[in-house]
Amino acid sequence: MPTALFNRVAIIGTGLMGGSLALALREYELADRVVGCARTQATIDSALARGAIVEGTTDPTVAVRDADLVVLAAPVRTIIELMPVIAPHLRPDALVTDLGSTKTAIIAAAQQHLSQVQYVPGHPMAGTEHEGVAAARADLFEREVWLFTPTALTDRDALARVQALARAVGSRVRELPADLHDELVAAVSHIPYLLSIALVRATTNEPRDGVRPTDLAGPAYRGSVRLAASNAEMWSDILSTNRPAIAAALQQFSRELDALAGLIAGGDDAALRAALADAVQRRRALDLP
Amino acid sequence: MPTALFNRVAIIGTGLMGGSLALALREYELADRVVGCARTQATIDSALARGAIVEGTTDPTVAVRDADLVVLAAPVRTIIELMPVIAPHLRPDALVTDLGSTKTAIIAAAQQHLSQVQYVPGHPMAGTEHEGVAAARADLFEREVWLFTPTALTDRDALARVQALARAVGSRVRELPADLHDELVAAVSHIPYLLSIALVRATTNEPRDGVRPTDLAGPAYRGSVRLAASNAEMWSDILSTNRPAIAAALQQFSRELDALAGLIAGGDDAALRAALADAVQRRRALDLP
Repeated sequence: MPTALFNRVAIIGTGLMGGSLALALREYELADRVVGCARTQATIDSALARGAIVEGTTDPTVAVRDADLVVLAAPVRTIIELMPVIAPHLRPDALVTDLGSTKTAIIAAAQQHLSQVQYVPGHPMAGTEHEGVAAARADLFEREVWLFTPTALTDRDALARVQALARAVGSRVRELPADLHDELVAAVSHIPYLLSIALVRATTNEPRDGVRPTDLAGPAYRGSVRLAASNAEMWSDILSTNRPAIAAALQQFSRELDALAGLIAGGDDAALRAALADAVQRRRALDLP
Repeated sequence: MPTALFNRVAIIGTGLMGGSLALALREYELADRVVGCARTQATIDSALARGAIVEGTTDPTVAVRDADLVVLAAPVRTIIELMPVIAPHLRPDALVTDLGSTKTAIIAAAQQHLSQVQYVPGHPMAGTEHEGVAAARADLFEREVWLFTPTALTDRDALARVQALARAVGSRVRELPADLHDELVAAVSHIPYLLSIALVRATTNEPRDGVRPTDLAGPAYRGSVRLAASNAEMWSDILSTNRPAIAAALQQFSRELDALAGLIAGGDDAALRAALADAVQRRRALDLP
């Protein structure tokens, strides 16, 4: 019989991410008992029905009681608000981690509110545009990167234990400083989301001569607006806790878009084609799945 | 035994689009004989090996001989260049259509070079980022929109025959004027492609402290750079034959992106969340598959 990595895991937020982690913990037998916490009983009932959790509550202070691992899987601002709420109820040897998409704001809050326990800042680069435990999948983290942004205060043993969990659910573990994390995810995650939102806004105006732009939509358009279906609260929290990095990444992106616009307007077709071929090469060199 | 819509169909360009149409013609028994034409014998051999065509040649004048339907399935500028080449070799009663992604430039060329036969301007909104007959699929057009941009000179019977073919391979047929087509596909197709290219350019620069932005890539990033893998020649032709519409669509898109940037920088989180929730609603209202 395999030995579980943790005894009692409390997952605060049993949506797509928390629900998927709960399913993966069960699938790989990584916890003896997974407890879920959500804002509504209906969400808990769904998580119970899917078998993601064996016990659920709407009270985070109840959920974290006796847990040796607490996973904060809520929107970023909710994660920050939860910290002082759960702190008095944590086991002294509890390990707390989070799945938040921005890290500097969360780490600052943890240093203020969770200094009495081991806290490990994490961010699995996984997800889909669907929300809720209904969309959860045990294999959500497989082959994806799970980022960790330890600080000088992060205990290396605690970090190793959470990284072992990340690897056990199939993720590739990577460490980087929190500020660099926030800067780089702005470019590879927050900008793609904003492009999707802006594209929806730009293409859902009044029809022209009875034809809506989206009447002409093909697979490229559908793929490009997929992210815009994601949960607005989650994204509002991400964007509002990463303002400077997003502003910088948007500027860099806009420079590239302007350069392309200039090439198209300029009329030098050979230069345009060369720029596109260069992007194809760069894209292929990434060797993405 | 079903009666084929056409006897001898010549598909000029047996790549992803032409190859898929050839496979669909066979699958649905829509043509007695499908002849392929490509720039290289290797491409023809691949199309023959996949069973997409029964006969192939690198000479378009040979391919169109005796064909009652000629499908120009090459990049836009190649389509335009092919017209005067094939014109003298077309049957007097031949019907010519094309799959080009921009329509006004192609229609102007057809009026100059193909006035002696029936020409039907078409544009199936189908495709993937993969290229070549290896990526061709008989079901590529299923449930997708196949746009037609008839002019005052377009013969309605000829149009009906090509639309019957489009419907027979599973497409939804829609008609609109060529200039409106070019304006709207700029917004729903050309801009998404440019966003993908700009994103690749913005995220494949030098590593920061040994970390490349793309080391943090998750499913959102992968989905957002998918289009950038598409054929550069095809796209260069599309962009360079639709300059004014693309410039206008880019301006509109940039206004929306700037508005989002302003909301993020402004610090009014409620307004930011409302804007995102509005986009989610608009996205869902599209009822995309």
